[in-house]
Amino acid sequence: MTFVRNAWYVASWASELTRTLERRTILGEAVVLYRTGDGMPVALRDRCPHRLLPLSQGRLVEDRIQCGYHGLVFDPSGRCVHVPGQEKIPPNARVKSYPVAERLGLIWIWMGDPDAADEAEIYDLPEYHRPDWGVAYGDALHVAADYLLLCDNLSDPSHVEYVHPTTLGSPSSEGVGVEFEEEEWGVTTHRWSLASEPIGFAKAFGNFDGKVDRWQYYHMHTPSIAIIDFGTAPAGAGFEAKAGNSDNCIRVFSCHFMTPETEASCHDHWLHVRNFGAGDPAVGEGISEQFRIAFAEDKAVLEAIQCEEDRFEGGTRVGLDLDAPAALFRRKIDRRVRAEAG
Amino acid sequence: MTFVRNAWYVASWASELTRTLERRTILGEAVVLYRTGDGMPVALRDRCPHRLLPLSQGRLVEDRIQCGYHGLVFDPSGRCVHVPGQEKIPPNARVKSYPVAERLGLIWIWMGDPDAADEAEIYDLPEYHRPDWGVAYGDALHVAADYLLLCDNLSDPSHVEYVHPTTLGSPSSEGVGVEFEEEEWGVTTHRWSLASEPIGFAKAFGNFDGKVDRWQYYHMHTPSIAIIDFGTAPAGAGFEAKAGNSDNCIRVFSCHFMTPETEASCHDHWLHVRNFGAGDPAVGEGISEQFRIAFAEDKAVLEAIQCEEDRFEGGTRVGLDLDAPAALFRRKIDRRVRAEAG
Amino acid sequence: MTFVRNAWYVASWASELTRTLERRTILGEAVVLYRTGDGMPVALRDRCPHRLLPLSQGRLVEDRIQCGYHGLVFDPSGRCVHVPGQEKIPPNARVKSYPVAERLGLIWIWMGDPDAADEAEIYDLPEYHRPDWGVAYGDALHVAADYLLLCDNLSDPSHVEYVHPTTLGSPSSEGVGVEFEEEEWGVTTHRWSLASEPIGFAKAFGNFDGKVDRWQYYHMHTPSIAIIDFGTAPAGAGFEAKAGNSDNCIRVFSCHFMTPETEASCHDHWLHVRNFGAGDPAVGEGISEQFRIAFAEDKAVLEAIQCEEDRFEGGTRVGLDLDAPAALFRRKIDRRVRAEAG
Repeated sequence: MTFVRNAWYVASWASELTRTLERRTILGEAVVLYRTGDGMPVALRDRCPHRLLPLSQGRLVEDRIQCGYHGLVFDPSGRCVHVPGQEKIPPNARVKSYPVAERLGLIWIWMGDPDAADEAEIYDLPEYHRPDWGVAYGDALHVAADYLLLCDNLSDPSHVEYVHPTTLGSPSSEGVGVEFEEEEWGVTTHRWSLASEPIGFAKAFGNFDGKVDRWQYYHMHTPSIAIIDFGTAPAGAGFEAKAGNSDNCIRVFSCHFMTPETEASCHDHWLHVRNFGAGDPAVGEGISEQFRIAFAEDKAVLEAIQCEEDRFEGGTRVGLDLDAPAALFRRKIDRRVRAEAG
Repeated sequence: MTFVRNAWYVASWASELTRTLERRTILGEAVVLYRTGDGMPVALRDRCPHRLLPLSQGRLVEDRIQCGYHGLVFDPSGRCVHVPGQEKIPPNARVKSYPVAERLGLIWIWMGDPDAADEAEIYDLPEYHRPDWGVAYGDALHVAADYLLLCDNLSDPSHVEYVHPTTLGSPSSEGVGVEFEEEEWGVTTHRWSLASEPIGFAKAFGNFDGKVDRWQYYHMHTPSIAIIDFGTAPAGAGFEAKAGNSDNCIRVFSCHFMTPETEASCHDHWLHVRNFGAGDPAVGEGISEQFRIAFAEDKAVLEAIQCEEDRFEGGTRVGLDLDAPAALFRRKIDRRVRAEAG
Repeated sequence: MTFVRNAWYVASWASELTRTLERRTILGEAVVLYRTGDGMPVALRDRCPHRLLPLSQGRLVEDRIQCGYHGLVFDPSGRCVHVPGQEKIPPNARVKSYPVAERLGLIWIWMGDPDAADEAEIYDLPEYHRPDWGVAYGDALHVAADYLLLCDNLSDPSHVEYVHPTTLGSPSSEGVGVEFEEEEWGVTTHRWSLASEPIGFAKAFGNFDGKVDRWQYYHMHTPSIAIIDFGTAPAGAGFEAKAGNSDNCIRVFSCHFMTPETEASCHDHWLHVRNFGAGDPAVGEGISEQFRIAFAEDKAVLEAIQCEEDRFEGGTRVGLDLDAPAALFRRKIDRRVRAEAG
């Protein structure tokens, strides 16, 4: 396993987490999630240390889980507080408890060293909180592929024309130059298309008479968050709009919170915030429908690649210029993994 | 493989065995079963030694199996008695034949050294044969878990309250002391609940006005038979009833005949005999319906545990007092396995 | 992998190959097949050397494949001729291209050294081309078994009575002698039944009043072609008919073109040509219906054997006289494999 452990990952939608025990596999570990009566999220290793039954097959008794096999009771800290039929509780009767937090409508979990967990480091997007912007929650898309393949995909604007020709892509983008910068927190890749035809997305949600300027900024935060800032403004007004100096544009932050499940599968909790139709949920849902089509296209590509990776017997792999940001992002993840290894 | 081989295992219901070839996998070996024209059960290794086709894909010719590929004929002793197209039968053309017997409505098979097979050692239950007791046959429940996990379960009265709260368990049982004794043939675990509320089962089939005495005796015979003697009598009359000196009780012997299929799966042929409603099959079926619910609950627990065992990467395992009888039973099985290894 | 690589294998029906990209796995390698605008068949390794996406998930642009991820374009020789967004095409940007040819209504592929590919070596059947004979194409039967098990089966006339009793077999054939000869290109096994009852097949398609002579010649060409020449003539006229000196017979060449998919699975493209009812497709379809029943019987046998081979833990394997031609055929394949290994 080569996961970054000291990081906040998304475990669930906040709205999904209730008083029902929920099992999730994250970085290869089974976790049980629930809320206390006060609404605080709790995450424990989902395995009773006695006979290994998943605690998620037990039941909540107030704020504690009672194992469904022999009735052992564990509190939110993971400590066993009751063993039916015996007085003394074995000192090793405890399960791992994970730091958790709730932000951006998501439940975040810290899989690494609990002492290193700092909620201030959880990713935030200022526009999410602005009342004049609209938020729409998408799906927890399951992808049967290494999350790094999804990171490659989200570091890479140039696949859009070929994988998403009817939704996000435009044949006229071919050859438009991609640039990228290393950031302290990751990699930004971006691309401008100036004075070009609006793509399907802009036609559907904007109201542009003629040519447009269009930007795509892929902000990749290690280990597994992608924030895609894309917008369209009338030709000539693009840079001002991107800088936030003009409202004459449509702009969307498409946010992907990837969580490795195993080495060859992950979940992508995606949501988006937009500067138009803020009060109209149908607009958000309309965008989500377009995204669902596009992300299903990505899923098909990535799962096929995972199959080929699994059977790869060696041989040529060709590198292209467009790989540079994804390669840099992978190196930055590697660096974090090695730093954790000591 | 760590199976006890020199033991009688249940291969099938007697009523299932006919003139049709039946394939079963027992201790990891595929076996073909049928009856001769005289009704004698036969069990052979289910694999033609020529090209490995399962003999169960051939056909019965009188009391012999003819392979479905090239017509080799094997008699009930496993000897090849005919090879179409050639005079001489190769001396190694034989398949293993297993000792088999029919008892308690079950077909028993001996997977070990045939010279050590003694039908007198097949388990018997005297009450099965009493005309005033009723017998009901249940199912051949398939459990995708090591049979030893099922043995743990059946050595352990204390799981009942948590796994079977609506059928066999009663919250008032918590903390009732469990005792166990080593037997020459296995382990007995038992528990008395005196002057307590009747459980759902007793309410459904008994006719008790007030408090009751209740016993559960788990007789575990190595390697894989569990006989659960449980009964309910009016409060104060329990010990007399258990000793057989009073008919003022309801009493059931719930019998589990477990047969390992692979290291991680088994069948449990279960049946029960009762001291009430002997002449009314609906009573037996009513009990079976309760058991079906309970055993499905056990199956869910054990299969989840098997999954966790399969992915267990090491780490803490907590031991409890209640584990003692199951641990003793496993040690006795180990001793038999080691004795067979020589 | 122990496949003969320097050989022509069938990749597809010719009629199936169009302007749509088709993926096939052959000798463990994924291949993408299509036709150029001129109708020429093309076969390339089905994996983009950039990110490993199967090229079959891309699209045809004129006679070239454009990868569905980043738009790389490969020509029929496997050379990359375009990389969107960069001028210079990396010199290692190419995929393997396989020699292909079209014969007997089939697309043939050469998986080995391209320099050794010689279309003149592709198997041909003279009767296929005769206007007074009828051709019928069957199915691309998938068999979840090593193609060598299918070769064993097709080298072996003696299984017919036991596996195909209602279609191709006849109980009276038991004990009829099988003879075989080594050929430069493989092994021929044959059997004559003189003055015997016609089998179901002959009854269905011939018009015989009394006893018949019947022949079966199994021509096995290494590595994976079986041509079964079988015919029925009135008793006494068999040898003349087989020699082609008499039309008073029904004769069929049943042709099996086996293509290993993996080490434990293959496809069998089968077709047949006949000397009767040449102009009536219903006759060909009627024969195919009989064959479908018989080949499904073989498939069931071979897939069961593959399962037993996979779990075979060692032990006795009995050899019979009837194994000789199959054993010789396997030795000849081994010799080719070793010769290729050098």
